[in-house]
Amino acid sequence: MSSIGLIGLGVMGANLALNLSDKGYALSVYNRTFALTEQFMAVHAQGRAIVAADNLPEFVASLTAPRVILLMITAGRAVDAVIAQLLPLLNPGDIIIDGGNSHYPDSTRRWQELRAQGIRFVGMGVSGGEEGARHGPSLMPGGDVEAWPVIREMFQTVAAQVDGVACCQWLGEGGAGHYVKMVHNGIEYGDMQLIAEVCHLMRHALGMDYAAMADTFALWNQGRLESYLIEITSQLLRHKDADGSPLVEKILDRAGQKGTGLWTAQDALEHAVPLTLIAEAVHARMLSARKDERVAASQLLGKPTEPVPENQRQAYLEALHDALYAAKVVSYAQGFMLLQTAARQYAWDLPYGDIALLWRAGCIIRSRFLGDIKASFAREPVPQSLLQDPFFAAELQQAESGWRKAVVLAVMQGVPAPALSSALAFYDGYRCANGSANILQAQRDFFGAHGYQRVDRDPALHFHTRWGGDGVEEQLP
Amino acid sequence: MSSIGLIGLGVMGANLALNLSDKGYALSVYNRTFALTEQFMAVHAQGRAIVAADNLPEFVASLTAPRVILLMITAGRAVDAVIAQLLPLLNPGDIIIDGGNSHYPDSTRRWQELRAQGIRFVGMGVSGGEEGARHGPSLMPGGDVEAWPVIREMFQTVAAQVDGVACCQWLGEGGAGHYVKMVHNGIEYGDMQLIAEVCHLMRHALGMDYAAMADTFALWNQGRLESYLIEITSQLLRHKDADGSPLVEKILDRAGQKGTGLWTAQDALEHAVPLTLIAEAVHARMLSARKDERVAASQLLGKPTEPVPENQRQAYLEALHDALYAAKVVSYAQGFMLLQTAARQYAWDLPYGDIALLWRAGCIIRSRFLGDIKASFAREPVPQSLLQDPFFAAELQQAESGWRKAVVLAVMQGVPAPALSSALAFYDGYRCANGSANILQAQRDFFGAHGYQRVDRDPALHFHTRWGGDGVEEQLP
Repeated sequence: MSSIGLIGLGVMGANLALNLSDKGYALSVYNRTFALTEQFMAVHAQGRAIVAADNLPEFVASLTAPRVILLMITAGRAVDAVIAQLLPLLNPGDIIIDGGNSHYPDSTRRWQELRAQGIRFVGMGVSGGEEGARHGPSLMPGGDVEAWPVIREMFQTVAAQVDGVACCQWLGEGGAGHYVKMVHNGIEYGDMQLIAEVCHLMRHALGMDYAAMADTFALWNQGRLESYLIEITSQLLRHKDADGSPLVEKILDRAGQKGTGLWTAQDALEHAVPLTLIAEAVHARMLSARKDERVAASQLLGKPTEPVPENQRQAYLEALHDALYAAKVVSYAQGFMLLQTAARQYAWDLPYGDIALLWRAGCIIRSRFLGDIKASFAREPVPQSLLQDPFFAAELQQAESGWRKAVVLAVMQGVPAPALSSALAFYDGYRCANGSANILQAQRDFFGAHGYQRVDRDPALHFHTRWGGDGVEEQLP
Repeated sequence: MSSIGLIGLGVMGANLALNLSDKGYALSVYNRTFALTEQFMAVHAQGRAIVAADNLPEFVASLTAPRVILLMITAGRAVDAVIAQLLPLLNPGDIIIDGGNSHYPDSTRRWQELRAQGIRFVGMGVSGGEEGARHGPSLMPGGDVEAWPVIREMFQTVAAQVDGVACCQWLGEGGAGHYVKMVHNGIEYGDMQLIAEVCHLMRHALGMDYAAMADTFALWNQGRLESYLIEITSQLLRHKDADGSPLVEKILDRAGQKGTGLWTAQDALEHAVPLTLIAEAVHARMLSARKDERVAASQLLGKPTEPVPENQRQAYLEALHDALYAAKVVSYAQGFMLLQTAARQYAWDLPYGDIALLWRAGCIIRSRFLGDIKASFAREPVPQSLLQDPFFAAELQQAESGWRKAVVLAVMQGVPAPALSSALAFYDGYRCANGSANILQAQRDFFGAHGYQRVDRDPALHFHTRWGGDGVEEQLP
């Protein structure tokens, strides 16, 4: 009998199956197309305790009670379809885990529907790509908390480990796991965009070649920017095409943006969280898709100016480093702001420190930096925002002049840096006790009699001025 | 008998009723609370051909066939409720017009549902606030095109006029009217945000007093920035509180963002249109709402630096003018990009030039500038984007150095200008034939084997490099 069954032998599912098998778990696998199961068994399963089922009743019958079934299939209707097929075969107390990239409202719905039938549903974000799945992913489970004691040991064992702690912690009820995964992916969009902007500045504002750029990222990867994305950027910048030229120059600058990054930006709007950096990252991908339009516009609207003189390069590189770091702090501060807002709305008790910890390894955004975030959430009291954390506040103030210098470079050279610059605008807005929204409120009251509050009165009171009339202010009922 | 019936005597409804009456249309009015109807009649209706109905059957019976009924009630369920009450009283061919701020998918749904019952539904955006409703609003009707010949004369008569043309044109089927109104409101958010940022820069980066700021906006209102919002900004900056100090200083800097501005940002994400400026405007309002957090952060993260010396003020004011103008061009270009994308998706044949024209007067974003946009859509062929229009391209290139100077001012002084700066980043991204998304694609292929296209191959082909392995590139199936 197997202690876990896995459905879906695509790349992620197959690698997770092998990971579970490596760790000694007896496993059953099932795939809708049995040929893929046979192929998996032939290539990978020699000498392993893996049961290959060619139908669902046989698959379910091979599992010990309570059954633990992990779905690694495409998010969407397929998940509902497989759950519907499984239901007649299951008993109360059995556990279904959805390890796909499901949208969290679907996971909340499935959790509710299955709970009514006595089945324990877990929506589990899985990050780390193929490599992570094979050797230690970051796992973000949420849903029916009664499932957690049953599955905990298994998934904490297969997950990535950092300083002896597993990158797999229980996140909360309903769709909490897939919610956290969604925000992770949004942050990933932001991190990637920031790096892409810095590459573009190095190349077009500083006139660097790809080897020097790769060296710079390799160097940065030894400091506070140490992270998987910085590391692979260094490697891919160095990569040569068949003719010996840099491969990245041959790659089309057109990126897709469907899925979790877009969901994160949409969700932030719904929750009224100013997630500016991730929104800019999503927008940048949308603009990248308009390649023909950009090519036409470049003929008409001119080009960036010549790079700055080489003797200024080193100083600008330090500025770029600081800008990348500071903008990243802003992005994560916004991301956790979103998590906190959603948690309030959905009554989740999200373990923020654990979230930082389980992103600390195994996933695409893994970085040294997440250790500092973990530390922030361990403070008493927890700062209202990462931007108000004493450590990060000091880091930002140290990085600030370089950050401004980098954004000015982008502005004056005409190189687009929407994420670096919007992060700075957010920072300046965030530290602005008296912002410019008084003008908006005055305008709205002027043209629409929408009323305003006053800084010198009880904020519960609203006022209207008859701007175009006798100019008198009245208190609104 | 009345030629039109109006339901809902709130400020907008009452003013539109008086406007219709002024133009000689015999009118019936109905309000759920009859007391409001009585008040309206007592205050306004002396000597006017207005029928005050205290129930719906009487109201409907007072209208000539085909009946034209205009709803001026709160968007949402109330609209469906009133339609349900009306239906048993109506005949095929009768017309229901929803003049509220309904979300366009609701208008599309109502159009479909009512068409099935022989009733002609029109969703009509109404802009211009109280004043517009009273003396000439901008009207954006769409829905059942068979209603248009019946209602056209009436609404083109009450609408604002510019150069003898009514700010009321038929926009298309289904929810087209409310869609255009939604985008109008999004653009309004953007215009307001840009002005607020410029005010903030004048005050805190240039150290100007409110009188000088008011003078500057009054001056600008005589040039290419001439518009209603610039005009009222000049007036409200000059306005004194009871104690003689500038009133705007007393207004709380916290703005709401629910409704159409938010919808526009959400809709742009759904349609994959990089509507960065309006998104930043929505985000800025969200950040403004976090007043306590901003006050706390201001203690920790420092303040903007001292204003620039007064002898540089004039040069910076010219830069701010150019920045405001250029960012506005970007915002409208993005807005029309959204209209064009939505029109393709919903199979609307939106009359873009007419849209510019009907925003030209009567509504909050009315401006001289919209005449230039109208001209752009009259060109043969129509430019792919306002940014590729020869007139606007030349204007932008003239404004460009001032725009960059203004953004650098904001960056170096630490004054937040998210809309001005994101517009510039968009402009630089838009004119960038080769952007930085090649880095994103390389990263995605590195960690997730997502594949990429090559600039030197057929874009239908996708490739994957085994980055971490033998480094060889393979063509994907």
